[in-house]
Amino acid sequence: MNHGLTKHPSHSTTHSSAPQKLMVELANRSYPIYIGSDLLANPLIFADVPSASQAVIVSNQTVATWYLSALHGILKEKYPTVIPIVIPDGEEYKNLTVFEQVISQLLEHTCDRKTVLFALGGGVVGDLTGFVAACYMRGVPYIQIPTSLLAQVDSSVGGKTAINHTKGKNMVGAFYQPAMVVCDLKTLLSLPKREYLSGLAEVVKYGAIMDMRFFSWLEAHIEPILNMRMPELAFIVERSCRIKAQIVAMDETENHIRAWLNFGHTVAHAIEVGLGYGQWLHGEAVACGMVVETYIAQSLGLVTEHFVERLKHLLQAFDLPTSLPQLPAEDYLSIMRLDKKSIAGNIQFALVDGQGKASVVSVKDQDIYALLQTLLRA
Amino acid sequence: MNHGLTKHPSHSTTHSSAPQKLMVELANRSYPIYIGSDLLANPLIFADVPSASQAVIVSNQTVATWYLSALHGILKEKYPTVIPIVIPDGEEYKNLTVFEQVISQLLEHTCDRKTVLFALGGGVVGDLTGFVAACYMRGVPYIQIPTSLLAQVDSSVGGKTAINHTKGKNMVGAFYQPAMVVCDLKTLLSLPKREYLSGLAEVVKYGAIMDMRFFSWLEAHIEPILNMRMPELAFIVERSCRIKAQIVAMDETENHIRAWLNFGHTVAHAIEVGLGYGQWLHGEAVACGMVVETYIAQSLGLVTEHFVERLKHLLQAFDLPTSLPQLPAEDYLSIMRLDKKSIAGNIQFALVDGQGKASVVSVKDQDIYALLQTLLRA
Repeated sequence: MNHGLTKHPSHSTTHSSAPQKLMVELANRSYPIYIGSDLLANPLIFADVPSASQAVIVSNQTVATWYLSALHGILKEKYPTVIPIVIPDGEEYKNLTVFEQVISQLLEHTCDRKTVLFALGGGVVGDLTGFVAACYMRGVPYIQIPTSLLAQVDSSVGGKTAINHTKGKNMVGAFYQPAMVVCDLKTLLSLPKREYLSGLAEVVKYGAIMDMRFFSWLEAHIEPILNMRMPELAFIVERSCRIKAQIVAMDETENHIRAWLNFGHTVAHAIEVGLGYGQWLHGEAVACGMVVETYIAQSLGLVTEHFVERLKHLLQAFDLPTSLPQLPAEDYLSIMRLDKKSIAGNIQFALVDGQGKASVVSVKDQDIYALLQTLLRA
Repeated sequence: MNHGLTKHPSHSTTHSSAPQKLMVELANRSYPIYIGSDLLANPLIFADVPSASQAVIVSNQTVATWYLSALHGILKEKYPTVIPIVIPDGEEYKNLTVFEQVISQLLEHTCDRKTVLFALGGGVVGDLTGFVAACYMRGVPYIQIPTSLLAQVDSSVGGKTAINHTKGKNMVGAFYQPAMVVCDLKTLLSLPKREYLSGLAEVVKYGAIMDMRFFSWLEAHIEPILNMRMPELAFIVERSCRIKAQIVAMDETENHIRAWLNFGHTVAHAIEVGLGYGQWLHGEAVACGMVVETYIAQSLGLVTEHFVERLKHLLQAFDLPTSLPQLPAEDYLSIMRLDKKSIAGNIQFALVDGQGKASVVSVKDQDIYALLQTLLRA
């Protein structure tokens, strides 16, 4: 995939000047991703939002404090009515109860089937709002305004919407594309450090599955990335969105290459469900999941020990967890068997080859069990 | 639309011999509708169902007693595991609570993203199962096996899935097409008379909006239709499915002509919500709704009094209600304003012209109010 690679930035490049525009190419459902600094202060970015008599901003308590009034100010120039809906902050609220509450509020405000929803927040707000948009009156337009690194580089792009079930992550959802994605890099500066670092896990993932040159670039730029320098931030978000947009354009509903994006996620979802939503951040679980799944790949002879060490080293440099939390191996197995990616009870992993490619592999329960036992005892 | 009209049956034709196959043409999502007698005893009909390790039959308590074992018998030849899920019978159970219960049961049975759902029942089972299929793991295949006249002629065809909200019918849903529709005419013979008659309302609707020759045929065959003679039943289902399939093929997501199918439904939904789900059957509300909306059309000069009388006469011959239940006119208005079809608070109706065509018209609140007052006082 490296043929599509853009020029890597030198340290002196100023990326924050003009917003970048990438397209997710999906025929008549294509849409732009805008990336830049201070976009929430730039009404021009919102010039092409769909018209309607009402707009709804869905946000969480934390993000609303920071950015709701800025977005409200821009949207009230475009829509006769702008309604804010604020949900609690945390993965544990990405559930059917909050989904129903948002739907009820839309009905109380007599929102119609042209009403536009704006998801202002991280992955939880984006996934839940997207699913509400997919279902409300059988579908209304929505726009993603991701304010976390994880949402900017991953969950806001590609139209995967969902809510969790106590038995599994993202078990109820839809493929439903947004009309636009707006990534304001400045919002990243207000993120708690732990959330920012968590987002870096998905960034590392793009390197591992599609672009080892990007992976190497990350290894060479740890300090400026940890310091959230704007040129590096801009490059990370742009490169990640570009890779994701390419994959989604090739395989919108995950019939082949989109499954590569699940690298680390079979184990990650088991960690999140096993510990209870909200204990580990999603990106933390993905970091650990990528390491465990790369051990699996190594045990199958798909990848060298050298790559396992590089991956662990990079994730640890970003202060991300690489050791599996202590839960019984049986629990991990039973949760993974129920994961969306399982087919006929066979657990599937997207495993990397250490060369910037991945493949989906069905692994036997006893092999997974043995490896989990070893890792949990280590 | 009359150019597509098939030969009308003479009384002597035997329609129950070979199953008919119609196609809903939607490019790579095209699917067949099979219509015939005793199809639930005919494994050949199910030869092309998608393969999976599990099939799930969703049905209601009443229908399950009659047909669950027959379908189970056929499917167990095709799938290693066949799981029945039985929900309560009635429109009041087409809600988010039952939706969640079905999802939880799928997870308890470790259903995966290839699991095929079979909706065995009337409109409630079909709409709810279809919406579960649309959302479970972001979409699994499903097959409609409608056992009521209303479901065979209307709700099972075209991929409109949904559940109700206390504030409005079908407020949460998706456009999600089935892989196949199987209409076994024999199941109609076990329907309670009231349910059978209710289904005739949607049949009359097809005549009114698209095919006045069919409308006249219905007027001329009231006795055999009331007596559920098989040739007439077969013709009614086939003609209705053919019209619906044509409309859906032209406009899957209701951007233009599909809205004609809403004739009678703006008022019908207000009756159902106003009285409480399950008080009137959907088809009963549609019958009354068509009459009220045709009075509106007449007040706008779109249709003659003669057609209003013909419509009322035909519906009354089928023992369907044509007088509006006594609720305050304000209640009707406020519910209709919240209907999915409203745009920016303007209530929309699909109104017929008495010549086999319809059009979508936005009508002023005060005009609707005045007419409702007159009808409620009459």
